[in-house]
Amino acid sequence: MHTEAVAWGDGGALIVLDQTRLPDEHIRLSLNTIDDVVEAIRLLRVRGAPLIGVSAAMGLSACAARAQRENDLVGDAARSWLDVTSATLRQARPTAVNLAWAVDRVHQEAVAAIEDVPSSAAADALVASLRRSAQRLWDDDAERCMAMGRHGADIMPRAANVLTICNTGMLATGGIGTAFGVIRTAFERGEVHHVYACETRPLCQGARLTSWELARHKIPATVLVDSAAATVLSTGRINFVIAGADRIAMNGDTANKIGTLGLANLARAYGVPFYIAAPLSTIDSNCENGAGIPIEERDPAEIARVAAGVKVFNPAFDVTPAKLIQGIVTEVGVLRPPFEDTIRSAMDGQ
Amino acid sequence: MHTEAVAWGDGGALIVLDQTRLPDEHIRLSLNTIDDVVEAIRLLRVRGAPLIGVSAAMGLSACAARAQRENDLVGDAARSWLDVTSATLRQARPTAVNLAWAVDRVHQEAVAAIEDVPSSAAADALVASLRRSAQRLWDDDAERCMAMGRHGADIMPRAANVLTICNTGMLATGGIGTAFGVIRTAFERGEVHHVYACETRPLCQGARLTSWELARHKIPATVLVDSAAATVLSTGRINFVIAGADRIAMNGDTANKIGTLGLANLARAYGVPFYIAAPLSTIDSNCENGAGIPIEERDPAEIARVAAGVKVFNPAFDVTPAKLIQGIVTEVGVLRPPFEDTIRSAMDGQ
Repeated sequence: MHTEAVAWGDGGALIVLDQTRLPDEHIRLSLNTIDDVVEAIRLLRVRGAPLIGVSAAMGLSACAARAQRENDLVGDAARSWLDVTSATLRQARPTAVNLAWAVDRVHQEAVAAIEDVPSSAAADALVASLRRSAQRLWDDDAERCMAMGRHGADIMPRAANVLTICNTGMLATGGIGTAFGVIRTAFERGEVHHVYACETRPLCQGARLTSWELARHKIPATVLVDSAAATVLSTGRINFVIAGADRIAMNGDTANKIGTLGLANLARAYGVPFYIAAPLSTIDSNCENGAGIPIEERDPAEIARVAAGVKVFNPAFDVTPAKLIQGIVTEVGVLRPPFEDTIRSAMDGQ
Repeated sequence: MHTEAVAWGDGGALIVLDQTRLPDEHIRLSLNTIDDVVEAIRLLRVRGAPLIGVSAAMGLSACAARAQRENDLVGDAARSWLDVTSATLRQARPTAVNLAWAVDRVHQEAVAAIEDVPSSAAADALVASLRRSAQRLWDDDAERCMAMGRHGADIMPRAANVLTICNTGMLATGGIGTAFGVIRTAFERGEVHHVYACETRPLCQGARLTSWELARHKIPATVLVDSAAATVLSTGRINFVIAGADRIAMNGDTANKIGTLGLANLARAYGVPFYIAAPLSTIDSNCENGAGIPIEERDPAEIARVAAGVKVFNPAFDVTPAKLIQGIVTEVGVLRPPFEDTIRSAMDGQ
């Protein structure tokens, strides 16, 4: 199931719904230069680890279509354009492994596509390959979301009161979402009583984006400041906590939106199950544990009105240790501890 | 040591520094009608449990001075004016016990003052009594802050890296503060390495007000979103957590700014000492435990940009159970568990 977070536009451009303007305004941007695509990712106009991967692949395809029209891909230029543009795109944001994963994958397929053709046909082959790869990545992501939704809904308690953080729905993926896709699937089965969405400072993806998705699907829901999560957990109102992931290490340690580590600790303190939902592409096979995950620090200006002379610490993510995670909902099922074993098996099965 | 958070103005008016405009603007408001005083408290132009008490007393005095000039206190009118105005003021905000405590105290003293004089002298006696009582309350609060500062600084680790929430300094009290007064006193002794101040959503008293006080005193400091507290605690960077209180039950359960309960749980999870600092006037002898503390829910509009159709849960406070609190720093020393005994003894000693 595709959604409106991204789309193809005229001339193969990448259309993104500008998420920085939601829920107040619905603005669609048409992108086909590498600067615009990188800026959209860096400024979080398009965001969410899986959707960053999908839109990077679609963006690369869009840029190639434009470059072809401007005759920038003639002969040998195709390959060097591909290498340079992919490398630039790959560095737009540091934490989400999906970005590098998606760019590497479409790059590799494009390299193979142009290797076999005479240089006069390289531009056409490149453009066609990138479009095909991006479309497949998008389709695959949508399918993975459906599978995660089913597996996650299977383990959710009846009449669930779910607490979640950030946005992990159609605005974060190429489909119905990761953690939010689980919630939505369970809701459609009639098994969700209420959803509590953490505001998610500093950029308020919970208050702005998850609330927008919750309203759209008419799921009964409440937004609260991040620091009120302790209250709703302490009162016993919540029986399930689920969050997405930006990168998962091979031992199960999980980088996700800042605040996830706090929720995981509080869920443990109050005896509420805490789950992560993410596709296997979020798992970084080069990363043994959480210590190896780079954490992006963002602009202090995102935290408003701090007096001059005082520093700001503004990490975008934190790392939740595997021991606080009951299970990781993936497209191949729910992985359980010991994660060293179950993650390895799931990866080997790919 | 008095500060500039409140002051006496012309004709006995109450001058308050409008805290909703800090740190960007320095606006002083002169108040002498009950509507203006209640509005200033309700809209958090003046805030912080002890300062609410001080400014309510000063505000009542300011209103009385004006009422006298307008001949509203002639004869028997003095007593009824006092009763009605006190009752209105007492209800400006529900959680902080200091408000009711301060109003009741100055009311009681004023009643005694006008009882003994002929009705022709009641207005003068009322105005004089309220001004005297308010000044003493203010002086006492400043002194209590100094005492809390000393007791708290005595238990702070050397080269402390302190985490705190909300604003508990000169903008929250009649003196140097409660938790912030402890930090400031320890800093002046050369024992504070760095202060981490939680932003404190939704009204950002940490980012706006505590940062302003930290900058003013040149204390090395960093502001972070509330949900990043888990990160700084998990990395071992913090060796002391201290927060203020809006109401403390007789068993030590403590209502304070939303987010305090989360910090207390995280401090416990990561083995960092967690303290409360508050004057004994914050202890509610009518309140056996935290279940009896009313929690103010504030306007959903304080949480920006939530999609229509989704509810907002916006509690101003949470209740931290006594078992998560290592000690309560008061003006008579640091109270330790079992709080049932130590609080009772401290109250009896008053």
